[in-house]
Amino acid sequence: MQQKLTVVKIGGNIVDNPVAANKLIEEFAALPGYKILVHGGGKVASELGSKMGIPAQMVNGRRITDAETLKIVTMVYAGLINKTLVALLQSKGCNALGLSGPDGGIIKAHKRTGSAIDYGFAGDIDSVNATQLVSFLNAGLTPVCAPITADSAGQLLNTNADTIASEIAAACSIAGCETELVFCFEKPGVMQDADNPDSVITQINAAAYTELLNSGIVHSGMIPKLDNAFKCIERGVKSVRITDAIANRGTVIS
Amino acid sequence: MQQKLTVVKIGGNIVDNPVAANKLIEEFAALPGYKILVHGGGKVASELGSKMGIPAQMVNGRRITDAETLKIVTMVYAGLINKTLVALLQSKGCNALGLSGPDGGIIKAHKRTGSAIDYGFAGDIDSVNATQLVSFLNAGLTPVCAPITADSAGQLLNTNADTIASEIAAACSIAGCETELVFCFEKPGVMQDADNPDSVITQINAAAYTELLNSGIVHSGMIPKLDNAFKCIERGVKSVRITDAIANRGTVIS
Repeated sequence: MQQKLTVVKIGGNIVDNPVAANKLIEEFAALPGYKILVHGGGKVASELGSKMGIPAQMVNGRRITDAETLKIVTMVYAGLINKTLVALLQSKGCNALGLSGPDGGIIKAHKRTGSAIDYGFAGDIDSVNATQLVSFLNAGLTPVCAPITADSAGQLLNTNADTIASEIAAACSIAGCETELVFCFEKPGVMQDADNPDSVITQINAAAYTELLNSGIVHSGMIPKLDNAFKCIERGVKSVRITDAIANRGTVIS
Repeated sequence: MQQKLTVVKIGGNIVDNPVAANKLIEEFAALPGYKILVHGGGKVASELGSKMGIPAQMVNGRRITDAETLKIVTMVYAGLINKTLVALLQSKGCNALGLSGPDGGIIKAHKRTGSAIDYGFAGDIDSVNATQLVSFLNAGLTPVCAPITADSAGQLLNTNADTIASEIAAACSIAGCETELVFCFEKPGVMQDADNPDSVITQINAAAYTELLNSGIVHSGMIPKLDNAFKCIERGVKSVRITDAIANRGTVIS
């Protein structure tokens, strides 16, 4: 029998908001079955960088990671945010296990090269060790993944959390899990009108996505999110949802 | 048959020194059999605190952990240092798994109370889940433990790394491992004369310890280290060594 698995990705803006974070953590802890949490953590890292005189540099929604910024994101993502989430989940009865890419060898990555923009210590994923992740799940553990990876030489790399969630969902699907991927962020879904929370588009297929791109309704940070979502569906993920709360339907990608 | 286990604790001063750290990581990666690494990370946290205008407050070699300091040590210990060590170990073929207390529920702790000094968010250990640690070891994983724990409500707590190493060694001994505990720090062992590296005391038993305390040869930071060592021997740890390199004999506590 195929194991059901829910992979939930929560964005930095949720992590920054204690009320939203606590609600989401409770919803996640209460989810039945196998589950994996992937988190970002944008604002906290930017704030710490500012305090230390290292302002965040963003291009196309992605952070430029110089050596000092790499230290900051490693501290904030894999340290502060990851352990805060793990401790809260444990307090709610969920046997959470915080992971970054090198932990247990779950993600192999390499430094991004060949791009017109030099993203610095940005990591692109080579492979996800779904066997190890499923072993953790079989042992009753719930992986909580920070968006930090490493290359084969031990160099840490900053990696997009949406991409990590997508790659984990795809790899676990190939490994035999019936996987739902849920992207939780600060809005109730993909919206026709960004100012109207009642305008959530409940379903997007490939044809509709092309139209939404052409019309400019989907733009900036939503584009990599939806690109990832469609790639996941192609790679065997059963469903992808974009929502502001695990319990809300939001936008389903198919 | 009893599994042999080596628990190695490395101090912050080693972590701060890239040459010493790399040598130690190579020695650790090459150790045969089951092994667990526990690390501190003093200086990096103090430096970051200074940059952010939060100077370190120390009493009896222990850090006073206010809310801001807790964030810093969580970031530095469980984030930067832990993931740097894990990625380096992975690059050397050691399947490292970074852990803090709440990860996989390996350590339960509570906030220190009833002390004459208010240590703030300092954690004292209630229990170590040796069953989970041994499961990780059986699965071919090498735990790398940061000195951050949490209480049952999910509050993160700063916890002495020597104590964590000792508690892990004692718990794993009770769980059936034949355990050697190695404390690695910047000196070659407990020395008769702090300025003479050739004056290492090769063996200390309980009677000798009392004399060393009375004569003042053992003082300040060495006292909790040796107290921990003797408690471990009483609780079934086979041997405890204090040294500057895994391969050096240093001082053996019995």
